[in-house]
Amino acid sequence: MNIDGKAYRTIWLDEADRLHVIDQHVLPHRFETATITSFSALCDAIRNMLVRGAGLIGATAGYGMWLAACEAPAKDTEAFDTFMSDAATALKRTRPTASNLAWAVDRQLAAMTRGSSPEEKRHIAKVTAQAIADEDAEACKRIGEHGKTLLEALAAKKANGAPVNILTHCNAGWLAFVDYGSALSPVYAAHNAGLPVHVWVDETRPRNQGASLTAWELSRHGVPHALIADNAGGHLMQHGQVDIVIVGADRVTRRGDAANKIGTYLKALAAHDNGVPFYVALPSSTFDFSLDDGVAEIPIEERGAAEVRIMSGKTPDGSVLDVQICPDETPARNWAFDVTPNRLITGLISERGVCQATQEGIDSLYPESAGTARHDS
Amino acid sequence: MNIDGKAYRTIWLDEADRLHVIDQHVLPHRFETATITSFSALCDAIRNMLVRGAGLIGATAGYGMWLAACEAPAKDTEAFDTFMSDAATALKRTRPTASNLAWAVDRQLAAMTRGSSPEEKRHIAKVTAQAIADEDAEACKRIGEHGKTLLEALAAKKANGAPVNILTHCNAGWLAFVDYGSALSPVYAAHNAGLPVHVWVDETRPRNQGASLTAWELSRHGVPHALIADNAGGHLMQHGQVDIVIVGADRVTRRGDAANKIGTYLKALAAHDNGVPFYVALPSSTFDFSLDDGVAEIPIEERGAAEVRIMSGKTPDGSVLDVQICPDETPARNWAFDVTPNRLITGLISERGVCQATQEGIDSLYPESAGTARHDS
Repeated sequence: MNIDGKAYRTIWLDEADRLHVIDQHVLPHRFETATITSFSALCDAIRNMLVRGAGLIGATAGYGMWLAACEAPAKDTEAFDTFMSDAATALKRTRPTASNLAWAVDRQLAAMTRGSSPEEKRHIAKVTAQAIADEDAEACKRIGEHGKTLLEALAAKKANGAPVNILTHCNAGWLAFVDYGSALSPVYAAHNAGLPVHVWVDETRPRNQGASLTAWELSRHGVPHALIADNAGGHLMQHGQVDIVIVGADRVTRRGDAANKIGTYLKALAAHDNGVPFYVALPSSTFDFSLDDGVAEIPIEERGAAEVRIMSGKTPDGSVLDVQICPDETPARNWAFDVTPNRLITGLISERGVCQATQEGIDSLYPESAGTARHDS
Repeated sequence: MNIDGKAYRTIWLDEADRLHVIDQHVLPHRFETATITSFSALCDAIRNMLVRGAGLIGATAGYGMWLAACEAPAKDTEAFDTFMSDAATALKRTRPTASNLAWAVDRQLAAMTRGSSPEEKRHIAKVTAQAIADEDAEACKRIGEHGKTLLEALAAKKANGAPVNILTHCNAGWLAFVDYGSALSPVYAAHNAGLPVHVWVDETRPRNQGASLTAWELSRHGVPHALIADNAGGHLMQHGQVDIVIVGADRVTRRGDAANKIGTYLKALAAHDNGVPFYVALPSSTFDFSLDDGVAEIPIEERGAAEVRIMSGKTPDGSVLDVQICPDETPARNWAFDVTPNRLITGLISERGVCQATQEGIDSLYPESAGTARHDS
């Protein structure tokens, strides 16, 4: 996507094989890029959310396995493999919920088995990391095309060219992927095609990815939008102000339960209560076909209390500062995700198309996964 | 309630008839009181939320009518009445959603008709303002006793003395009333009686009444609690971490639809989806028996965008500062309340007892209001 006329991805290798990312800590008040020069720095970047978002975490993990391969013992294949196995374990521990992370790490491990020497394996890791990033961008682009047809159908029912009102939660835009995004990709595709759209941007406490990242993305691309408190979506839906909800996902089970940013479940309940279609957009790498019951089975990351107690923002003099919003002694808890049961999801949008959020629906797009069902009742 | 061992109400007249309030702008980082010396300053105090909360708005409006009476023409009864009628209109416009405000203003107007001179009317206004405040405190105390029985019943079902987990949204504690509170009054009553309780405190964006006021109240009273993002409640309920939700209300219709702080509806949906009892606590002054369908009929205040875009908090050096959490150009919308339909409400807790959130349930506690129904089908 473009920033002030220049095309960017969220992660890239330059000609000298240096790994660069957009620094998502300083957005929206500053736009900066950061260079990641070691495997441990890359783990920190994921853990501390310098990079975040399902697809970008996966792509970063792909590059992380290449960085690890560059640091691994270069002469002894067995020692190399042991080093890489340890690196894979460390990477998977950085964020527990997003399935793209484990997916990318496991893909790298499988790919490297095709190499017979550390040097070959290192080359394979680099090529695979690039492929993961390219495929993520391509999948998101296709999600945009499939999702655009949903928005076109809604636009056809609006009078007088009124905009289609889309509500989204968190940031599942291009900043959460390598490019294009998942939930926002249909919005960009529709906007680029001249369809009138307007986005309700959930602030997304406690880390404010909506206020800081989604609002910034939409503004840079010229898409009409308004920031709202996470609390406001139900009221808007009660009063006909939302035509469709589209969110991203961090892990989707084979029956279509979707883990996404904490609070997504509440919006799905409100959409269901008001007859508003609720869609989850995801690249195939976000599926976890080994799980069925998302609420029971998807591990939910609990993060530090400081993210709830402390808020970052720009002061009147332009500096960025942390402020504490509660009494000094207040304890806080901070679960990062919740799970929306498939019964509340109208459909899934992947790069392969749109399907129902059921095992049958997913099987129709992913016939190769049908055999992986654990409960064939 | 006590603050550091000293008993306080949120609003009071001193011996010299000066009106004092707790300054709710500077909590939780500082505890200060403010003196309100004129009718226009009192209107500003309500509008700018120096005082806030259903009951406290009503009590403040009661004192506001007395301040207006002190400023009204003292020699001409007709001119006095015209002045007071204008004052009543101005007061009602300060916050449109809370029914306690109009209720207190109308009670003052009705009471003053019993006086035959400006002097008599002014005296009636003072006595009535005191009565409104005293009755608010007494009603909240009784709400606590009625609600405590619900918590005792839940505690009896918990193993090993585990605490009853109560989730609340916004601040319906004693800071929102003259004393005791509505939703928190049962919590204080149970805690004081030795029942183990633990409160999940919704942050309550955009004005953070949970993080700043509820957390402060509970901490000062020694009630175990934890601050959570507004987004977290659904996840907690999915995982059995919430035994009961108790919220306050700003207006409740005669069939039991409840307007309360924006986001309450989302918590009611999650409670309903997970079989968690959901109660609304309110003094009688919060009922609006002239309305039936809350979603269609209760006016919802839209406040300024700055409340969403700007967050106030304490900096590392101890000063209190505003920070902007979104890009400079981001527009925001800010509805202050939403309406929870009665079908999602397990029961209402008023000073008269606990009843179902239906016209029949409300009639059982308020038989005198039964004749006011507009739809007797």
